Amino acid sequence: MSKTKPIGVNFEELESQCLPHLSVDCVVFGFHDNQLKVLLLKSKFIDEWSLPGGFVGKTETVEEAATRVLKERTGLGEIFLNQFHIFSDPKRSNPGLKPENMKKAGVKLTNYEWLGQRFLSVGFYALVEFSKVDPQPDVFSQTCEWKGIDEVETLMMDHRQILDKALETMRLQLRYQPIGYNLLPEKYTMPELQKLYETILGRELDRRNFQRKILSYKILKRLPERRLGVAHKAPYLYRFDLEKYNQALLDGLSGDW
Amino acid sequence: MSKTKPIGVNFEELESQCLPHLSVDCVVFGFHDNQLKVLLLKSKFIDEWSLPGGFVGKTETVEEAATRVLKERTGLGEIFLNQFHIFSDPKRSNPGLKPENMKKAGVKLTNYEWLGQRFLSVGFYALVEFSKVDPQPDVFSQTCEWKGIDEVETLMMDHRQILDKALETMRLQLRYQPIGYNLLPEKYTMPELQKLYETILGRELDRRNFQRKILSYKILKRLPERRLGVAHKAPYLYRFDLEKYNQALLDGLSGDW
Repeated sequence: MSKTKPIGVNFEELESQCLPHLSVDCVVFGFHDNQLKVLLLKSKFIDEWSLPGGFVGKTETVEEAATRVLKERTGLGEIFLNQFHIFSDPKRSNPGLKPENMKKAGVKLTNYEWLGQRFLSVGFYALVEFSKVDPQPDVFSQTCEWKGIDEVETLMMDHRQILDKALETMRLQLRYQPIGYNLLPEKYTMPELQKLYETILGRELDRRNFQRKILSYKILKRLPERRLGVAHKAPYLYRFDLEKYNQALLDGLSGDW
Repeated sequence: MSKTKPIGVNFEELESQCLPHLSVDCVVFGFHDNQLKVLLLKSKFIDEWSLPGGFVGKTETVEEAATRVLKERTGLGEIFLNQFHIFSDPKRSNPGLKPENMKKAGVKLTNYEWLGQRFLSVGFYALVEFSKVDPQPDVFSQTCEWKGIDEVETLMMDHRQILDKALETMRLQLRYQPIGYNLLPEKYTMPELQKLYETILGRELDRRNFQRKILSYKILKRLPERRLGVAHKAPYLYRFDLEKYNQALLDGLSGDW
């Protein structure tokens, strides 16, 4: 940990440009090597990891703020963002991050009182194509990296709770909306799609039930090609029928009341 | 409209006790006479209706703020509240409500600059038992009343958008969570339950499909009694099996992946 470098933040400028008390935090999911990954930052000041986040400009919507933060951390311009909850526990601030403690830790900051106020944070989650992300740390962090969901233990402040709530929301969403576009490559096999669902749900699924149900939604196109080089029987490749996929995002999947 | 009465709000006190820029707005649904109703307030100052709302105390969570607002407007202490979205368009404030315009309209307010700032509002929706609510206007309003969803046209600021988003969220929720407890009397018939679903979804449902699906969730108990005094065949009465209902709220209804 580098505790001596001054960080290049002008808090007077932040105060004049941003709303007080309000932040955004983003849970960015990617899928790689059959693992669900989340994008995290390692603090320069304390031995903790956090979610990418930022403040809200005085004339910005919270969506614009989150989009700006994600552009800075991932390099991606167009990201599907889902606002899912505002976290407002007055005790959510982390004493370790308080300006006075950062000062004690030798961090040179000027006019940083702003950072010590109470923040309520709007949580967003995003599903991105792993290979397209170029992770960039912010001024408070030494690195920005993908971590497997199963490797994540504690996080800074209430970020673990924000991550868990994002996962919970995504799991509920699996019940009525399609998922996978942006997380999978363009062409994939049925076992790969099933693995994505199993990873998000955190449990194994029955192969035949999964295939029957996912095909019943009519959002997939089976391609004439098969995946070659696989041990035994070569599996078919699928891709999403984007028109039907996008319609299902709007209408929901199981609208058969 | 009474435009001359001074309103009893101490804005200096509000400023010292509440967070700037942040409010809560509540969409309170009730079911009565086979109609979905929403609780609205009629402004004292402009010819518009609005949702019940309020500000967030400096040491309150947004949930506590919404609970306090709803206790004041409905008299109900324990309300199932669902935080569903934060509305942050910088242009969402209504010029008609701006302090300078209220002053022009003859309203006596002191230190009301606070009210003219930008507000981001956290939307909540609540499902309540119609008959238990005792609607009470706030200091900005002349009345607080139930309105049928179909009667509501425009609302103050972006409150129509907040109402629509609450309805949309509740419709999606119908796909994976049970609904009806708090909205229906303790005992009800299958046609009454179906009517509730139809009202929320805004369309008619097939009687047999509805019955088959709702019974498959095993959240209902059929009672030995039947509803008497109905024209032809007396329908059975049902009530929710609360233990299973509450479990389904947590687990979701169609978890058969």
